[in-house]
Amino acid sequence: MYFHALIPFRPVNPKTRLSGVLSEEEREEFAQVMLGDVISAVRRTGCTATLLCTSKYECRDALVAIRREGLNEAINWALPQFHCPALIIMSDLPMVTPGSLQRVVSTKADMAIVPGLGGGTNILFIKNPEKFHVEYYGFSFRRHLQIAEELGMSVEIIDSMRMSTDVDEPSDLVELMIHGHGNAREWLYNHGFSLSTESGRVRVVREGVEVA
Amino acid sequence: MYFHALIPFRPVNPKTRLSGVLSEEEREEFAQVMLGDVISAVRRTGCTATLLCTSKYECRDALVAIRREGLNEAINWALPQFHCPALIIMSDLPMVTPGSLQRVVSTKADMAIVPGLGGGTNILFIKNPEKFHVEYYGFSFRRHLQIAEELGMSVEIIDSMRMSTDVDEPSDLVELMIHGHGNAREWLYNHGFSLSTESGRVRVVREGVEVA
Repeated sequence: MYFHALIPFRPVNPKTRLSGVLSEEEREEFAQVMLGDVISAVRRTGCTATLLCTSKYECRDALVAIRREGLNEAINWALPQFHCPALIIMSDLPMVTPGSLQRVVSTKADMAIVPGLGGGTNILFIKNPEKFHVEYYGFSFRRHLQIAEELGMSVEIIDSMRMSTDVDEPSDLVELMIHGHGNAREWLYNHGFSLSTESGRVRVVREGVEVA
Repeated sequence: MYFHALIPFRPVNPKTRLSGVLSEEEREEFAQVMLGDVISAVRRTGCTATLLCTSKYECRDALVAIRREGLNEAINWALPQFHCPALIIMSDLPMVTPGSLQRVVSTKADMAIVPGLGGGTNILFIKNPEKFHVEYYGFSFRRHLQIAEELGMSVEIIDSMRMSTDVDEPSDLVELMIHGHGNAREWLYNHGFSLSTESGRVRVVREGVEVA
């Protein structure tokens, strides 16, 4: 089945909750590497992608639309233009794999949703997205279930640690370093991050200093 | 396929990292309710269960073995006695469902493993467990992969938010209250816990006070 992906992306000063462990320049580079892992997984499911960027950004592997409004407004501008199923996926999911995405896009329901930790929404796959609208932030998982119900859409909730874990905080880096396969994990190792089990628990250290 | 489950359980003073939000008596009751949800899911996959309890405990729905030694010693005492596949599952996984467990026990590999957050191991399913031994605590996920490799066992890693999220800390209660279906979620609601979205983020409150 052909479908098209929307990937919102903030090129400038992203991932501010990682400010304690990464400089602004490093955060921008790390965000790009995570985005690259997401695009790569999306493309390997046979899907094309458009980035919805808050500012100018060049990308060889995806179309780019610059949308200076908020996240919801940008996506809700794009959805009515769809004539095929839409995959809306966040750019900070570097543990996603083609196999895990396959579980999402092969749903028999009208819509598949992958919740984020804490009530968010990490991935939406909507077979007829023209009439759908998104409401991200806060308890968006519940809102998206409600919107689907109002439209009479059946929903499958996909149970996946890889796709539910968005990388926001230093503690999320532990999971990425343990379970990641892609370039984002590699980037961390190449920038002095490593796993330590000295304290009995698994910790992330950077040049000897515990960061998570 | 017939298999038997081992569920380690600490009846006295469990879940100490929840001490800030639950009294000792409440923690014991909550731990029992979570255990009940796990036993229920296990039984609905057609499986029988033995609890490995650190002290006296009565349970109608499972066999009970009192083992006063450590977690690893108790499980490694049991494994050589198996003549069928073993499912080793932690008692603090109240989001587990029969459907998610089915993904584990229907593996084509010699072993299936569900990692816990932070490098732990939440579920092991081992088709020929007689020669296996466990090494819980710390980076047990990596150790269990190594032990399987040493024994020449193929391994499937199961990607599941429901089964990777063990309930240890107050922040884990958010996920349980959002995604749980069983009695543990009900117990929290009956004991004054609720979800709040007032701050924009999803929080757990108990009688008006934010706990996570």
